Formats: sequence, C-alpha cells, structure tokens
Amino acid sequence: MTAQSTSTASGFAPAAAAGATPVEPFDRSTQNEIAAVTITPVAFKDPPLLNTVGVHEPYALRAIVQVTTRSGLTGLGETYGDAPHLHRLSLAADAVVGINVFDTNRLRFAVAQALTADTSQGGHGMSGMVTGSSTADRVLSPFDVAALDVQGKILGVPVSSLLGGAIRPEVAFSGYLFYKWAGHPGSGSDEFGEALTPEGIVEQARQLVDGYGFSALKLKGGVFEPDQEIAAMLALADAFPDLGLRLDPNAAWSVETSLRVAKALESSLEYLEDPTPGLAGMAEVRRGTTLPLATNMCVVSFADVKPAVEQGSIDIVLSDHHFWGGLTRSRTLGGLAESLDWGLSMHSNSHLGISLAAMVHLASATPSLSYACDTHWPWKQPDEDVVTHDLSFVDGSVLVPTGPGLGVELDVDGLAKLHEQFLESGITQRDDTGYMQRFQPDYTVASPRW
Amino acid sequence: MTAQSTSTASGFAPAAAAGATPVEPFDRSTQNEIAAVTITPVAFKDPPLLNTVGVHEPYALRAIVQVTTRSGLTGLGETYGDAPHLHRLSLAADAVVGINVFDTNRLRFAVAQALTADTSQGGHGMSGMVTGSSTADRVLSPFDVAALDVQGKILGVPVSSLLGGAIRPEVAFSGYLFYKWAGHPGSGSDEFGEALTPEGIVEQARQLVDGYGFSALKLKGGVFEPDQEIAAMLALADAFPDLGLRLDPNAAWSVETSLRVAKALESSLEYLEDPTPGLAGMAEVRRGTTLPLATNMCVVSFADVKPAVEQGSIDIVLSDHHFWGGLTRSRTLGGLAESLDWGLSMHSNSHLGISLAAMVHLASATPSLSYACDTHWPWKQPDEDVVTHDLSFVDGSVLVPTGPGLGVELDVDGLAKLHEQFLESGITQRDDTGYMQRFQPDYTVASPRW
Repeated sequence: MTAQSTSTASGFAPAAAAGATPVEPFDRSTQNEIAAVTITPVAFKDPPLLNTVGVHEPYALRAIVQVTTRSGLTGLGETYGDAPHLHRLSLAADAVVGINVFDTNRLRFAVAQALTADTSQGGHGMSGMVTGSSTADRVLSPFDVAALDVQGKILGVPVSSLLGGAIRPEVAFSGYLFYKWAGHPGSGSDEFGEALTPEGIVEQARQLVDGYGFSALKLKGGVFEPDQEIAAMLALADAFPDLGLRLDPNAAWSVETSLRVAKALESSLEYLEDPTPGLAGMAEVRRGTTLPLATNMCVVSFADVKPAVEQGSIDIVLSDHHFWGGLTRSRTLGGLAESLDWGLSMHSNSHLGISLAAMVHLASATPSLSYACDTHWPWKQPDEDVVTHDLSFVDGSVLVPTGPGLGVELDVDGLAKLHEQFLESGITQRDDTGYMQRFQPDYTVASPRW
Repeated sequence: MTAQSTSTASGFAPAAAAGATPVEPFDRSTQNEIAAVTITPVAFKDPPLLNTVGVHEPYALRAIVQVTTRSGLTGLGETYGDAPHLHRLSLAADAVVGINVFDTNRLRFAVAQALTADTSQGGHGMSGMVTGSSTADRVLSPFDVAALDVQGKILGVPVSSLLGGAIRPEVAFSGYLFYKWAGHPGSGSDEFGEALTPEGIVEQARQLVDGYGFSALKLKGGVFEPDQEIAAMLALADAFPDLGLRLDPNAAWSVETSLRVAKALESSLEYLEDPTPGLAGMAEVRRGTTLPLATNMCVVSFADVKPAVEQGSIDIVLSDHHFWGGLTRSRTLGGLAESLDWGLSMHSNSHLGISLAAMVHLASATPSLSYACDTHWPWKQPDEDVVTHDLSFVDGSVLVPTGPGLGVELDVDGLAKLHEQFLESGITQRDDTGYMQRFQPDYTVASPRW
C-alpha cells in the first residue's frame, strides 16, 4: 500500500570480512536504512472452525510487510489483515523509512509515535476475543520481524542467532483441534470433515497426529456445553494417553463452571487456558484448582503483567510475537515469564509461512519456553503461501531454519494470488460472529456463556 | 588462570559480503567456537572511600576475562576479583570452551551447569552489602560480555547494535560522592583530600562537577548519623540546585529512621536508595513517603522481582550487568522494569575500562533507562587500566563507542602491571570491614545501624 523509491547500491561489507576496522562501522551505513515499505493484504482459504464467538469465514486475512533497505535487501513480516490494522500499518510504514534496520529500539518508538494521532477502532485481528493487546506492539511486530530478517541477511546469520542462538534444533508444536462443520455452508464437505462430538474430535486428532506427529493437542472449546467438552478431553486422554492436552474455551465460563470443569479434568490436562474472563476471575479459579491456568486473553500486553502478579491470576503465559511487539520484545517476555515463575507457551492465529518461520526462530531461542507451541498450520491449504521455504513437520516439530534471516523467500506469484483472493473475497475485517449469524440469525455472543 | 591451545585460522566470511547464501551459515562455523579462556586477576589503586560496612582498601580487585575463538578473535569481560569468584570463573571457563560465541543462551546454561557442584562461599565482590545476587548470573556476566564483544568484532558492529541499537548517542553518568579520609593511613593525603562533613562533600562535588560535568550526584551514605547526611544532601541541593541528587545509605536505617530522613529530603532528591534492609521494610518505608525508593540491595536477581511486586517494595531498580547475568540478561531487566512501571538506573562498583564500555553500550540501548548511571570512574587513577579506549566524559556523559564490539583494545602492559599489583597487594577478597577494624578495632557492622 506504500511504495517508495529503492536504490540498490551495496557499498558495505562487515569489518571482519574486509579485514580492517572501519571509521564508521558498516551497520551504521545509510545502505542499511529502510528505503521502502510495501504492505500487501492477502486472504487464504480457511475451514469453518468453531469458537465461542462464531465460526471462521471462508478466508483468513493477513498482511505481508516487505521492508527494503537502501542496499536493496528485503525483510519480511506477517501480521493481521483487518482494515483498521492496515491503516495503522501504513501510518507506521511512513514513520520507519530512514531508520537503520539494526535499530529495533528506534523502530519501536517511531511506530508508537506514528500512532499517537490515530483514533481508529478495531482491527485486533482476533475476532473480538482479545481486544486488550497493545496497539503499538501489534503494529510494531511485522516491522521488527522484517528488520531482524534483513539484519540476518546482511550479516549472513539466521534470526535465531540474533536472539541469543537456538538452544534447541527443532521446535515442538501442538496439534490444534477445532469443532467444525463439514464444510462452509453451500460448499459441501472439505477434506477435514465434520467434528461436532467427542468422537469427531478424537477422529480429527487422529488425522493430525498421523499427519504431523504432534506430541501435544489443544482443543478450542467454549463451543458446546461444558459437559460435552469435558467428555471430548477425557476421550482424547483415553485415546492419546502419552500426549499433553489443553482446553481453551476463550473465557466462555463463569468462575463456578470453570471450577467444575477444572475438577473434572484435573488429572487429564497439562493446562487449562482462559476458562473465565478477567484477571480477578482467573485468580479466583486458580485458587480453587491445582490445574495450571494459562492465558492469551487476560495477559496480552506488558501492562497486564503487574496486575496479574499482584492478583495471582495465572501460571502460564502464551507468548505471541504478533501482539507482543515482535521478536525483540517477545524475547523480553520470555525472560519476564521465567523471572516470574510463569510457564511459557505460544499462541497462534491462522497464519502463513513467514509467521511460522518467525515463531520457530523465536521458540528455538527462548530457553523458558516450556510447552509445545500452538499453530493453525494444518488448516491452511498446502498450495497457498507467500513464501517458499523448507519448513516441515517431523514428529510434531519443525527444524529451525539455518539460512540467513528468517530463512524464507518471498514467492511473488503466491503473494499476487493471495492478494487477488483478498480483493475478491470482499472481506475487510474478521467477523466470526457475523458469519455465524448468517446461518443462525439468533446467535449471540456472551462471556461467560455458561 | 586457564589457558588452552588457540588455533588462528579464519576461514569464515559473512554471507552478504561473500555474495552467496552458505549451506551452513558462517556464524555456525567452528571458527566461532570458544577455544580458550584466560582469567587474569588484577588490582588497582583505590582511595579510602567510606561506607556503612567500613572503608575501601588501598586496592580494588577485578578479574579480566579474555575469551578467544578458534579463529583467534578475542573478546573481553570484566568482573569481581575475589578468590571464591575466581574459582567459580575457572569452573565456568572450562565449561564454555567449545560453545559458539553467538550462542549466549547456551553460555548461560553451561555456566549454571558448571556451578552445580560448587559449594564455595562468599566472593560476592560487594563487601557483604549485597549477598543475594544470583551466583550463576554473576559468573555468567563476563562471559556474556566477552561473547558479545567477539560477536561485534566478527560482524563489524558495536555491541550497542547487538542490543537493538543505541537510542542515545551518549550516556549520562552521575557523580559518585563518598565520605573519605584524606588518604590511606600512613600514606599522607591523596589528591582528592578529606571529606567528612557536609562542607567536605560539597567541595568534593564541586571537584567532580568541574572535572566531569556531571548532571546528577549520588552520596554514599550510611556512614555518619542520619542528621549529618541529611545536612550534606541539603547543602548539595543548595549548592547544585539544577542537579539530580540521590542518597544511598546501604540499608543503614530502621524503617522509622528511613521515614524521618525521607520526610526531611522529600523535596530535595530524585530518589532515595536502599534506606532500610529487606523487601518488607522497603515496602513499609515506601508507603510512608512520596520519595521514590530505589534499590540495588533488595532486588538483585530475577528471583527477587516477583516478591518485590507482590510487596510493593520499590519504585526504581538499579541494573548492574555484573550481577544481572551480563548484557543479554540486563536487557531483559530493562524490559521487565518498563513493564512493571519501575524506573531504571544503573549501579556501579570500582571498575576499569572494559566495564565502563559495557555499561555505556548497555545504557545506550536500554530505552527504559530513566536516570544517569552510577560510576566509580573518577576514583580510579587515570594511568591504571587494562584497555586502551577513547572513552571520556563530556558534560557528564560518555559517547557510545562505534568501533566493532565493545570498542576497547586490550593493553597487554597495563594488564601485566595490574596483575603484578594484584600479586603484590596480598589482597584476595574485598574486606572493607576488616580494613576499617585495623584502625578502629571496636568497629562493628550493623544493618540497620540507626
């Protein structure tokens, strides 16, 4: 959406390679300054996955951020594609031109400054379930990722090395289970089929485990009566006794219901995620159960950390570089979680290959990561992406890319196709609730629902 | 103390310079692995500076850590020089050989692992005033600094760029005032002269401000009756109305005395540092004053953060990369302080040029640093150091070095001289109290003292 002239000179070289100490270090070269930013909204096919606020639309939106330096190197970032977010990204894009890609500290302040006059609403990219995340950190994220991608390309090192080095050669992911319709209404059944019962969920889990080798499973709950979801988790525990299990009803339950579910699942889960809304409610549930409580709803920005400690609301925080300010600040979150004795896991939204690579680099270099990461990856069509890469799942894990930067390359044709799909989709803002109401006009959102 | 064979081949080059993507990225080259570590204890002259546990001995101890890669590049770190600490450094030195200097995450775990069987006591390097810091983080620190120094040399970038980029071109320091004797007993007066009264402190402040241009002043208190120290601070406020002022009695006071002093100085200080011992006592003082409370005694490791938040003990934390695990983890502390709404300042011990450079790089790249940093630099003899550098104070600030790594070069002769001085000094462990008792046999330590 923003395009500026790009020069392609490349008169720089690291000092160690040149064999001499430069008067001005090469990283300070104007060649490493951001000359242009391109923001491309894209849409990719998404199955009808159910959650407590509705159902996924036929297309998921993302925005692809290309940051190009004066030397002509390009770094990639991926973020939400909702209209208000695109507007803010364009404000930020103007503000970061001229900043050196080694200056991620400065990037942060330039982005925050660019947003001070912005009064637009919405665009959280998470369907109304998470609205408290920091707007500045959400907008910063793709620029931080792209800056580190370029840094890695300039220096010839993988992003993991810029984050203190991978401490694990591969990153374990969790299989993300969803109640779902057989297919989008009017489109027949998709290849995944229907999953509306505990048996359907076990069957879906079998597909994911067979296909990817996941060693952990998470069910998106808050869709059916708690008793059905308890039954689904117990069925999963029975079918997969060696796998770590999690249930995430997205704050669909009252404190009382949460305590009842926690009691029923106390010996079956590795953690229960966001059973009930708010720090106070979470703290109350936490006092009444031995089940660890995780969140990506009540601690979603650095400002939430202090009240969460004071109230004793959580045991585990789910990081997500898309709303925690990119990789640089997510690394800080990792240290913070460790220092507060919080476990650390990783949250996911529907995403493409740039985000998968970024998640893998971050997770590989985050010592305190104590759980397999979430990913929506299996729900994406294999032929839809904006990058080429060699990321693949073996035994539920992805090998950390070792090429320079993120280790993925822009697929110009793939990007063009998904941008075209964005334009054709007519979707400008994620709306799981509105889409559900097209088929169930009396559908309403409530938190807690039960 | 540890020396191992060093090969000096250098068959690596950053990919961007070579113009091609390597199959194995150059940072993973075995050439970047640590081949040898040399630990050299040194002693340098120190004036008789008074504090609440005694007086500085004629020599201050440090250890200089040289980390050399297989390619023959050397990085520098500086840390405490007490005997138990030297012992632990040598355990760590053996453990880090073979680790790639880009793997600071791995360095940390290797050092922690090397110390698991260590049962030695003491060696905190801070004269008994701070004993709760993390031993593993204290030992890790010089290795982390040296690894970043080498990284910077390999990549041709300053350490500040490895920390997200300098957001300020220069770092402001505070002038560190001490009650002091005219000279060490038996040695006549030194060039600084005596300062045992409020007038003496104002005169000392005048010297430091004239010589360095400091824009803030800190008095090491806890030496005399609180009323004299209140008088000294009021005299400083009167003489330097535009300078930020701080008083640090190192927990010499009861809660009651702390509240009395705080009341007397409420409109004169930017903060009061560690008036009383412990998180609970600090919290009690904090509830009774509007004066911000700072600490480098009750929050000195990541494990202290959570109880400090829960008890509401502090407003400001003093970072110190020497006990917060080096630059990598101090960066995390910066993010943590920001997220907890804590102000951030920087603590100092008697130090040489490597530490000054490391402090400047860290401070330059720490956005949340909200106060001028402490430094003991003026108390060091100008002709005693282990590195050559162009660090100098202009208007109380030091320009951030722009050369590769820390931007300082080992001075082999200076190192040899200060090592010789270490051997001749006979000092193996800092002991301000024992030194004081040589001249005042009835001297005892008490916290709180008043």
